[in-house]
Amino acid sequence: MLTKSSALMRLVGELKKLPGIGERTALRLAFHLLKSPHNLTALSESLCDVRDRVHPCSTCFAITETDPCSICSGNRDSSVICVVENSQDLMALERSNAYNGMYHVLEGAISPLSGIGPSDLRIEELLKRVGTGGIDEVVIATNFTVEGEATALYLTRALKPAGVKVSRLAHGIPLGSDIEFVDAATVQWALQGRNEL
Amino acid sequence: MLTKSSALMRLVGELKKLPGIGERTALRLAFHLLKSPHNLTALSESLCDVRDRVHPCSTCFAITETDPCSICSGNRDSSVICVVENSQDLMALERSNAYNGMYHVLEGAISPLSGIGPSDLRIEELLKRVGTGGIDEVVIATNFTVEGEATALYLTRALKPAGVKVSRLAHGIPLGSDIEFVDAATVQWALQGRNEL
Repeated sequence: MLTKSSALMRLVGELKKLPGIGERTALRLAFHLLKSPHNLTALSESLCDVRDRVHPCSTCFAITETDPCSICSGNRDSSVICVVENSQDLMALERSNAYNGMYHVLEGAISPLSGIGPSDLRIEELLKRVGTGGIDEVVIATNFTVEGEATALYLTRALKPAGVKVSRLAHGIPLGSDIEFVDAATVQWALQGRNEL
Repeated sequence: MLTKSSALMRLVGELKKLPGIGERTALRLAFHLLKSPHNLTALSESLCDVRDRVHPCSTCFAITETDPCSICSGNRDSSVICVVENSQDLMALERSNAYNGMYHVLEGAISPLSGIGPSDLRIEELLKRVGTGGIDEVVIATNFTVEGEATALYLTRALKPAGVKVSRLAHGIPLGSDIEFVDAATVQWALQGRNEL
């Protein structure tokens, strides 16, 4: 039988480091993988592949395999930059098919409690991109959390002197919601931001 | 930005093959791993390690890194064999610290619906082990499911001619349960198997 120092227990230990995976789930995953050596190999190889091939774009800091990334080098509107916290947010915006401009990934948000200040983010690089000219608008798409809002405020103040238009994603009631169940703060934002028809 | 054919998407595809992990969770895990190349490498290496080093014991078919495994080669009671469906069940029995005999892992249970018959399990190997003598008792610890019970019945009939004592784990109320909430079939088993005090 397996002792605690075995390869399987090391694999369980590595799987446990993943978010939302505890001891029991890790054990279940490890035993599942053990049943098919082919999947074990494929997963191992794709992990190495990601490590070796995926890196941040040198312009927008979105994760990419080419440099510059396909958005920076593509045929898109280069006069607008959408600022997001991370590449996952970028993917969500791309899924909407509603945006055809450039992006800038901050790689986080300002969070004094976690010791993350403006200098830990890609803000200087953003100001440099805006400073080189050709940018008409910066759309701030940081999350609507305390950290995201603080980052948006900081960016607005930092970008204003450059003379570009700074905008923020609209607050409001999400599509398909029953107003009865939407939280009070969102309803408040939706009222304040109401549009004339 | 990443296209669908990228290394990251392949990793997401591999992670999605794991039980209980869907597209969104796989993406979250992949991005989490992407943040620390060290964890990526460690997970990849431990996967290869498991593939190369972990295999079934040639005697009891429990997963092990040595052959025979530490239980088969250890200083334990070799006159009792506990039959389990898989190595996870073996680990659960070991955690109880209530058993000091040998094990035999069937690598499944009889399940006509899934096309698994007695010949697909390690039953022949068990009968061979019992046939060589020195075994007084076989404890059947297959699961208390339709498949596990069918396997237990099959094993009982197959083992009886060998003249060994065949026993089954006790049915009953689990420790810490409120009888009010225990299912009727379990209460029925507990009543039928009641012990005199």
